[in-house]
Amino acid sequence: MSIDFEILATSASGGRRGRLHLPHRTVETPVFMPVGTAGSVKAVPQDVLESLGAEIILGNTYHLYLRPGHEAIRRMGGLHRFISWPRAMLTDSGGFQVFSLSELRKVTEEGVSFRSHLDGSSHFFSPEHSIDVQIAIGADICMAFDECTEYPADRNRAEESLRLTMAWARRSLDYFRAHHHEAPWRHEQGRCMQCFGIVQGGMFRDLRRQSAERLIEMDFDGYAIGGLSVGEPRELTLEMIAEVLPLLPADKPRYLMGVGYPDEIEQYARMGVEMMDCVLPTRAARHGLLFTSEGRLNIKGARYAEDQGPPDPACNCPVCRRYSRAYLRHLMHSGEALSGTLNTIHNLAYYLGIMQRVRGQLQAGGGAEFAQGAGTVETRQAPL
Amino acid sequence: MSIDFEILATSASGGRRGRLHLPHRTVETPVFMPVGTAGSVKAVPQDVLESLGAEIILGNTYHLYLRPGHEAIRRMGGLHRFISWPRAMLTDSGGFQVFSLSELRKVTEEGVSFRSHLDGSSHFFSPEHSIDVQIAIGADICMAFDECTEYPADRNRAEESLRLTMAWARRSLDYFRAHHHEAPWRHEQGRCMQCFGIVQGGMFRDLRRQSAERLIEMDFDGYAIGGLSVGEPRELTLEMIAEVLPLLPADKPRYLMGVGYPDEIEQYARMGVEMMDCVLPTRAARHGLLFTSEGRLNIKGARYAEDQGPPDPACNCPVCRRYSRAYLRHLMHSGEALSGTLNTIHNLAYYLGIMQRVRGQLQAGGGAEFAQGAGTVETRQAPL
Repeated sequence: MSIDFEILATSASGGRRGRLHLPHRTVETPVFMPVGTAGSVKAVPQDVLESLGAEIILGNTYHLYLRPGHEAIRRMGGLHRFISWPRAMLTDSGGFQVFSLSELRKVTEEGVSFRSHLDGSSHFFSPEHSIDVQIAIGADICMAFDECTEYPADRNRAEESLRLTMAWARRSLDYFRAHHHEAPWRHEQGRCMQCFGIVQGGMFRDLRRQSAERLIEMDFDGYAIGGLSVGEPRELTLEMIAEVLPLLPADKPRYLMGVGYPDEIEQYARMGVEMMDCVLPTRAARHGLLFTSEGRLNIKGARYAEDQGPPDPACNCPVCRRYSRAYLRHLMHSGEALSGTLNTIHNLAYYLGIMQRVRGQLQAGGGAEFAQGAGTVETRQAPL
Repeated sequence: MSIDFEILATSASGGRRGRLHLPHRTVETPVFMPVGTAGSVKAVPQDVLESLGAEIILGNTYHLYLRPGHEAIRRMGGLHRFISWPRAMLTDSGGFQVFSLSELRKVTEEGVSFRSHLDGSSHFFSPEHSIDVQIAIGADICMAFDECTEYPADRNRAEESLRLTMAWARRSLDYFRAHHHEAPWRHEQGRCMQCFGIVQGGMFRDLRRQSAERLIEMDFDGYAIGGLSVGEPRELTLEMIAEVLPLLPADKPRYLMGVGYPDEIEQYARMGVEMMDCVLPTRAARHGLLFTSEGRLNIKGARYAEDQGPPDPACNCPVCRRYSRAYLRHLMHSGEALSGTLNTIHNLAYYLGIMQRVRGQLQAGGGAEFAQGAGTVETRQAPL
C-alpha cells in the first residue's frame, strides 16, 4: 500500500473509506472537490469553504496560466498562499480547457498551440509545459496532460487520441519526476506533490483497458478516469467506470473527473471512486437550481414567492438554518450578488454532505454491504 | 430626554455618545448604517454583517415596494424576518428613489405618480401610502415622505419644494401615529416603531432653519437632514449641517442622510450627528475602490499585481487578516463574484471601525475635546 494513501474499510461493492495524505492536508475519502476555476470557488469565501468541510479544491491550470499567470503565482509562493487556501488542492492539466475554451487550436505530437479566449494571444502547451505550469501553481496533485476525447468519437479517432494521451502521459510523468521538487512550497511532513495519470479511450472498453494498463506500468501516484460525462448516456458512463475500476491498483486513489449529479457521486463513491469534482453544484446554484433531499428545486419558481421554509428542510447548512426559499427567490429575481453566494453554499454543503454520509457508512459497514441512501435518483439532463 | 434615546457623553464640539433603543436593537451611536437596498447589503451575508458589528441597516422602500412588494413582506412578518436580520433597520420614504430612479414622474399636492424603472408599471406614492408601505416593511425607524430638493435649485424652487415637504411631513406623521401599531411584529420590550422628519430647504440657511423649526413643532421621534451630498461643494454641506444641528432638540437622534466619505462621517459624528448612511463603501467596493488607513486604494492597479500585503495593514477585518492585495486584484480582473464580497466586507469594516473609534473617544473624553483621527482628509470627487 502506498504510504500516501491508506484504506480504512472496503465494502462488498468495492467502495473504499480511505485517507489521502497530501502535503497540505490529509483528505478523508471518498471526497467531493469543489471547483475553484480561477483561484476562487465562485462566490464563496475561503473561510466558508473551510466551515463546510471542503478539504480539497480544484484549480484550473488553463485559467490560472492565463491570469494571473503561473510565473506570478510561483513568485508569490504558489496558489495556496496566493488565494489563502491552506488545505489541499488539485490542478487539472489545462488540456480540457484548451480543447473546450480556447480558439484556433492546433494539435501536434509535440503539444497544442492555441489562442486565449480572453485576449486572443497565442500560447503553446506541451506535456512538459503543462507540468511546469502545475508545479509553479503548486497544487498537491497535478494531472498528466491529456486529450479529452470528445463524444461521440469513432474508433479510429478514439485510438489516435488515446495514442497521443499515452505518449503525453509518459512525458508528463518524466517531467514531473525531474522537477516536482521545484514546487513553490516546502514539502510538509515530508509529503511530496503527486501526479495522476488519466485513463482515456472514449467509449471503447478495450481502449479503456489498454489505457489503464499502460498508465499502471508507468506507476503514477493515482489514476483518474477522464473523458466521461461528456454527453454520453449515463449507462455508458457507468459501463466505462465499471470496466476501468477493477483494473486500477487497489492501493492507489482513483479520481473520476467532472462528475456529476448528487446520486451519481454517491453511486460512484460506493463503487470505489475516491475523488470526484464537478462544476454542477456551483454553476447550477448561480442559475437558481438547488439540490435538496427532496430533489431539485428551482428557486426562481413563483411557488416559492412567500415560502418561508428553508431551501432543504433536512439540511443543516448555514443557508438552510437562516434563510427562506422566499428570500433566496427574491435575491435571484433582484439580481443580488448574495443570491449566487447563498445558493452555492447550500449546494456545496449538500454535495459535501453526501460524501460525509457515504464515508460514515463505508467506515461503519466495513466490508458489509448497505442500502443506497435516501437521495432521489436523478436523470442526467441539462439543468440550466 | 426621550426614553428611546439616551446620551452618555457630549464633547465640546457637540459630538454625542449615545444609545438608541429601537424595537430590534439598542444601537450605540454615532452609528454608520450600511445600505441594504433591496433587502441585501449587496454581496454580504447577514452573519458577516453581524460579525462586523453592524447594528442597523437601511432598506429602500421604493425597491422593496416594487419587489417583492410590501404586502408580501407584511404577510411574511416584515422585512426583519424576510431577510433574517434580527437587528435594527431603517427605511427611507421612497421619495428619493422615486425622484432619482423612476420614470414619467408627476408631482401634485397629493403625492407622486411614477412608472417603475423595472417594468414601466404605474404607481402612486402619497405620504400616507409611503408610511403604510414602511409600516408593512416594518423597519424600526421610518422616514416622512419628502421631496429631496435637487442641486442646484433657486430660491423659488427650494421654497416650493420645502412647502410640499413640510405638508407631507405633517401628513406622514399623522398617518404614522394612527397606524404604527400595525407593524408586522410585536413591539419588543414595549419599544415602538419610530418616525423621523426630514429637514430640507436646499442650500438656503433660512429655509433650513424654517424647516427644522416646523418639524420640531410636529414632534418627530428623530430628525434627519436631507438634500445634502447631492452635488454641492463640501463647504456648503458643512455650512448647512452647522446651521441645522444647533436647532434640533438635544434629546432626539439626528440622522444625516446619504453621507459620506470616511473623513466626512467622522467629522459630522464629532459635530453631533448620530446616524449616517451611504452607498459609498458598498458601491465603491464593487468598483474596486477600497478605503484604508493609508487613503484610497484602487485595487485594480497594476502595482498590486504581486503585492502580498493586506489591503490595509492597519485593519483587522476578516479580509485584511486573510487576503492579499494581489488576490483581490486578481478576483476583480477575473470578474469573480468573490471580489465584490471581499471588497465590500473591508469597506464596511472600515466605516464601522471609524464610528467605533469615534464612539470610544466621545465616551472616554466626555465633554472634553480631542484631536481629529489619523484618517486622511479626502476631497469629495467621484471615485468611480
